[in-house]
Amino acid sequence: MNLDILLQQVAFIHEIDKLKYIQRKTRLFNSDRRENDAEHSWHLAVMAITLAEHSNEPIDILKVLKMLLIHDLVEIDSGDVFLYDTIVNHDNTEAERKAAERIFGLLPAKQAKEFVAIWEEFETGDTAEAMFAHSMDRFEPILQNVSNQGGTWTEHNVPYDTVMDKTSKIQHGSKTIWDFTETLIDDSVLKGYIKKPDQE
Amino acid sequence: MNLDILLQQVAFIHEIDKLKYIQRKTRLFNSDRRENDAEHSWHLAVMAITLAEHSNEPIDILKVLKMLLIHDLVEIDSGDVFLYDTIVNHDNTEAERKAAERIFGLLPAKQAKEFVAIWEEFETGDTAEAMFAHSMDRFEPILQNVSNQGGTWTEHNVPYDTVMDKTSKIQHGSKTIWDFTETLIDDSVLKGYIKKPDQE
Repeated sequence: MNLDILLQQVAFIHEIDKLKYIQRKTRLFNSDRRENDAEHSWHLAVMAITLAEHSNEPIDILKVLKMLLIHDLVEIDSGDVFLYDTIVNHDNTEAERKAAERIFGLLPAKQAKEFVAIWEEFETGDTAEAMFAHSMDRFEPILQNVSNQGGTWTEHNVPYDTVMDKTSKIQHGSKTIWDFTETLIDDSVLKGYIKKPDQE
Repeated sequence: MNLDILLQQVAFIHEIDKLKYIQRKTRLFNSDRRENDAEHSWHLAVMAITLAEHSNEPIDILKVLKMLLIHDLVEIDSGDVFLYDTIVNHDNTEAERKAAERIFGLLPAKQAKEFVAIWEEFETGDTAEAMFAHSMDRFEPILQNVSNQGGTWTEHNVPYDTVMDKTSKIQHGSKTIWDFTETLIDDSVLKGYIKKPDQE
């Protein structure tokens, strides 16, 4: 029955509205206002269609979009984990897995399975699509931080090596974007937004 | 040069952040908080991948996603026009055209042309993809209004005929979703959220 399927899908559409309340650490461009996960997911999706040509490998851009649109939904239950958090691991946790089962489980079974698989592929991160999607996820906060006099780097005093460790994954998705990112990071060091060990 | 292209794309990515400040009339589900255009665009995109099977016609879902992700960008310059506004027309206006030229014009020329064409196809609204995208754009505020005791229908005292006139376009994208929407509207009349002429 189409209606039964539709009702399950509408329950999912209703539930995911909560993503609009999940606050990230990063702030909007040139702004004090924190970004929420729904805004973030939208921005990454537009970035992906805009920057697709810079992917290292040919990618199925539709799959990248699906990943980016749903990648943070688990945070409705498990909350946003700050990229530079030194205690909580950002990777696929048991809490996130349970959240995926609950939230995608609102959908009809076949679709739930499909969405969980897309989310898992993003989390595992080893396909061309997942690597490009991760590049977008790392690149946006860099642009935001640069526009906010260092943003979360300055606020949380994130050391240079940690910034490099977390952001250098961009190169797996796009060497072009990573080359550009390195110039932004170098410039942020010069401006004092990011401290190198010998500067501390 | 890849870098020149990338710099233009980054300028666009920076500019479109402003979509997060454009407030809509509709409010989040079960909430007083108004939705912004970025959140709205994200929600419609997830709705499209969730509900694609209900499209009347086979659709290129990637094109639908591109439409939904960028359809409101012109509102950065021209502002949100309320669907039920009785003075300002919701359709493609001169102000929106100028906005499209300015905002998409930040991109490299070839890409700007592609994005403008997608936006125009959405605005014209006569392809299967545009009709399905419009169904999403009309369906989301209905779900929100139902969850908010009538929401904008009640706040702005929108008459039944106007609600039907504006929302019935959903059937061009999906008869299944329109059939369901009619039950929601009927129920909203029963609950007094929408007034029929003989009830006034």
